[in-house]
Amino acid sequence: MKTPQQTMTEYLSALLDGLVATGSTRAVISPGSRSTPVSLLIHRDPRLTDYVAVDERSAAFFALGLAKASQEPVILVCTSGTAAANYYPAICEAKASRIPLVILTTDRPPELQGVGAPQTMNQQELFGKQVKSFTQLTVPEETPALLRSSYWQGEQAARQAIQAPKGPVHLNIPLREPLLPDLSRSSYPANVFVDDKVAVHISLASYTALFEKKGIIVVGEAHTPAEARMLLQVAETLHWPIVGDPLTNLATCGYKSTSYIRQIDSIFGACPAISELEPEVVLRFGRLPISKNLAQWLSKATLTPAVWLLVDDGQEWLDQLQCTTHPLPYSTKQVCQAILEMVVQPCALDWLEQWQTLQKQAEEVIAQGAWLHQLSETSAAYHFFAPLPEQTQVMVANSNAIRMVDRFLVPTQKECTIWGNRGVNGIDGTLSTAAGIAAATQQPTVLLVGDLALFHDMNGLQLIRAYQLPVTIVLLNNQGGGIFSFLSQRTLDPTDFDPLFATSLAMDFGQVATLYQMTYLQPQTLNTYQEQLSHAIQNGQPALIEIQGTFDEPVAIWNETLTRLRKKVESGE
Amino acid sequence: MKTPQQTMTEYLSALLDGLVATGSTRAVISPGSRSTPVSLLIHRDPRLTDYVAVDERSAAFFALGLAKASQEPVILVCTSGTAAANYYPAICEAKASRIPLVILTTDRPPELQGVGAPQTMNQQELFGKQVKSFTQLTVPEETPALLRSSYWQGEQAARQAIQAPKGPVHLNIPLREPLLPDLSRSSYPANVFVDDKVAVHISLASYTALFEKKGIIVVGEAHTPAEARMLLQVAETLHWPIVGDPLTNLATCGYKSTSYIRQIDSIFGACPAISELEPEVVLRFGRLPISKNLAQWLSKATLTPAVWLLVDDGQEWLDQLQCTTHPLPYSTKQVCQAILEMVVQPCALDWLEQWQTLQKQAEEVIAQGAWLHQLSETSAAYHFFAPLPEQTQVMVANSNAIRMVDRFLVPTQKECTIWGNRGVNGIDGTLSTAAGIAAATQQPTVLLVGDLALFHDMNGLQLIRAYQLPVTIVLLNNQGGGIFSFLSQRTLDPTDFDPLFATSLAMDFGQVATLYQMTYLQPQTLNTYQEQLSHAIQNGQPALIEIQGTFDEPVAIWNETLTRLRKKVESGE
Repeated sequence: MKTPQQTMTEYLSALLDGLVATGSTRAVISPGSRSTPVSLLIHRDPRLTDYVAVDERSAAFFALGLAKASQEPVILVCTSGTAAANYYPAICEAKASRIPLVILTTDRPPELQGVGAPQTMNQQELFGKQVKSFTQLTVPEETPALLRSSYWQGEQAARQAIQAPKGPVHLNIPLREPLLPDLSRSSYPANVFVDDKVAVHISLASYTALFEKKGIIVVGEAHTPAEARMLLQVAETLHWPIVGDPLTNLATCGYKSTSYIRQIDSIFGACPAISELEPEVVLRFGRLPISKNLAQWLSKATLTPAVWLLVDDGQEWLDQLQCTTHPLPYSTKQVCQAILEMVVQPCALDWLEQWQTLQKQAEEVIAQGAWLHQLSETSAAYHFFAPLPEQTQVMVANSNAIRMVDRFLVPTQKECTIWGNRGVNGIDGTLSTAAGIAAATQQPTVLLVGDLALFHDMNGLQLIRAYQLPVTIVLLNNQGGGIFSFLSQRTLDPTDFDPLFATSLAMDFGQVATLYQMTYLQPQTLNTYQEQLSHAIQNGQPALIEIQGTFDEPVAIWNETLTRLRKKVESGE
Repeated sequence: MKTPQQTMTEYLSALLDGLVATGSTRAVISPGSRSTPVSLLIHRDPRLTDYVAVDERSAAFFALGLAKASQEPVILVCTSGTAAANYYPAICEAKASRIPLVILTTDRPPELQGVGAPQTMNQQELFGKQVKSFTQLTVPEETPALLRSSYWQGEQAARQAIQAPKGPVHLNIPLREPLLPDLSRSSYPANVFVDDKVAVHISLASYTALFEKKGIIVVGEAHTPAEARMLLQVAETLHWPIVGDPLTNLATCGYKSTSYIRQIDSIFGACPAISELEPEVVLRFGRLPISKNLAQWLSKATLTPAVWLLVDDGQEWLDQLQCTTHPLPYSTKQVCQAILEMVVQPCALDWLEQWQTLQKQAEEVIAQGAWLHQLSETSAAYHFFAPLPEQTQVMVANSNAIRMVDRFLVPTQKECTIWGNRGVNGIDGTLSTAAGIAAATQQPTVLLVGDLALFHDMNGLQLIRAYQLPVTIVLLNNQGGGIFSFLSQRTLDPTDFDPLFATSLAMDFGQVATLYQMTYLQPQTLNTYQEQLSHAIQNGQPALIEIQGTFDEPVAIWNETLTRLRKKVESGE
């Protein structure tokens, strides 16, 4: 006859075995009492690396970062009650941006439910429609059938998390006291997980005629540098322009392609209705890129009888324009390979050349900006990429930071990976996500972030400090919600604008750096900025580099850029 | 023909009119774009006081504090996406502790749902079973029927929030651009809200025989000092002992009653099986008090053929002991009045005197403790109440802080109100809740909190600073999860215990105080502690008083107390 502790231990060990067998190698634990056996068994499991975070909101975004960078089903563990509710923001982001997470919430047993027992609430379906699945486990039992079931639930959870569309899954585990498990386990089945090695080839032969028309490739959402290189190759093969935002890594994949039209937000901002740029085919990968001007131009292009292909192996068909004619339920890699294997007569070069001309004009206008030579938020974004070493991980916060990078970052032949939380575009969890990316990749990680987003996730700094992660923060401090200076809210009276939208924190970030024992730098010139950024990254210690900004300067620079580009295009210089 | 802006403005104004007409006077707004019209209309509404908080998690706990102290339906406003998900921890707490909140999340319109539009996720039923109701509003329309509907939804939301059991309700509001409302409104219907003035009397005449038996009154959950005084009066009338935890305010309602048996956790900790203390009737108000030893004794008492009355006008019957024989669906006030109006033959005095003897013995043991004269976490809790002026608001954090107050706080004739988040007992949101209580009451507010709980809600300090709220924080810094030193986890090897349960933050809270511009004090003696606490409260400026603690001292003091009390009771001194 087994003791309750042995029964609980075997049951939970089977669950962990199932998770490990399906690819989990990392867990993020928040301290708590009810979660004690799960936490201890994970902590002692040589197959799992565990991290501990007191603030569950940070913990979940840290796990999000780990899972983004590893694409593995990262485990989250917490106690009962509001602890789990703190996971919710990161779970919403994981669902929307398809990041695999396995959330293990622990709970009181059935006899303590619905009777006002301490730290007890209804945790069933706690995350509603924001998880791919919810499973209520039973209290540990010792029958072979239940042990097999527990193992299978572990496998099933990790499988669902990594199946396209990837995402978060939730298991709720009711546990009875005593909560200390049997700690005598010494043998662990090896992690034999094999990722999908089956090569699935598709043929797009029946689409040949489409790919010989005037087309454009529009890429959104996160893509790896390897995927980005394939996409560029496809564009070059077809003589099509290709556009995409920073997360696609088209600009930072280590390969500069002349087919890549990078200045898309300025081109369509300056010339929203260039008549000659009317594609016959649009090949889309993922959601729309961040550029609002591109989206508006595309929504006009929907009126033409164009063919719209949308690639999505998750088969969610998130088409904001609602004009997809050909849904392609395959991965980016499968579609790219299929196109590269086809024999197509590429499009006439003048189609691409029109785009290249505009791209060149936009580049020249930006390169001639007087603002380029003075340190500002915009010039910091422009000069941001040059000092970074190969393989740097770059996390770009919402909402101004990612737009500046989209508009101004200057690509090189260097390969880096750009990350962002663009599933639901929150300003929350940015630091913790960056910390998770640094922990998973063990690469230098740079975070470009505004002051409100930094404040929102300040507890993430504790993770960077505790694990001494190589994170360099470039803070664009415009003293509040700078994004609103680009929007109609800016026309409001200061009595309305300042408290509701400017929301200045008046926070001394030097003291924040002191509190979290980070190097603090406040460069006054562009040269110093680049030197300090370069040095901070090489140094490998957490550092905070603060750039002073203003509400009006980014808008002025952007408007001036568009005006000059419009003139240049109209005069045909 | 109205413009879309006018239509939107009238529609949202009607909603706000409905909320105001049903008692809402305060709103907490987090900045965002989609929420612009709601935020602006609230900000300009002379009937509503608005607060702005960048971090929505803090915002929601701040609203929780406002609503705890005012019992009004406090409005929360945020933009679309993860912003709303950050509300979840406070919503779970509000649901469990029955605090009225009206959550207004704004959302993108139907045509942008499910298509991957930016900052868009499924916000319908976002808070699942943790809200009393969810309503999806339609996009603004200008027909009289829709304006009436919008007004009615406002009324309905506030009504549901303040109806027993009180709690959070959620309205999701889809809005189209342009988002700036018509700001020309100048007339506002006066707030004519009249709280329930209908006097409902109940008669408990048929229970007369029950109230003449040997009974005990067990009070849990938050009660106002006025309710506490009535409860004490009932106990005195019946010659029954009355027990309850700090949130009941039995100890701090300004009236010292000899019927109140305060040392209940030490009495049943030292003597879990005193045979003569067997009640024939248990009259319960709310959930069980915090004392685990009391709960264990009560669960044994369930074996006797006692009558168990449970008073709950919310009719949720949260009876962890599952032995209620007489559910009473009335308010505390109604039941107390009914008992006080009855003609009963009170119980023989020796029943109460047995309890009073134990109470006196426990008080003497504590008063003789050598630890009382040195500054420690425990002695800080013991000496905590004396320096406070009348009407001080006291927020006590989970999990060690509230237990120490339960065990050691020394009552006086002074009236104060003690608050805590004991719905789900999270360590999150404590500072923001205290800030909300201070803002609503405009009274000096003291927060007794451990280091992990303080860290978890550090962003709440920004609210205290921004609104210069009169909050004094007494930090019991035991460098991590001190609660675990009382639990079985303490037996673990340091390689397991330290990373998973001790979780020291090694944080310099003096620097935290500097960052948030609070006075920082680190008293080394009991006298200095009391002087500094007294002075900080009189001063009215935000202050942080740090008490250095250790993991082992509170356990040692508690065990010694129980040992001495056991001996004293056994020897009959």
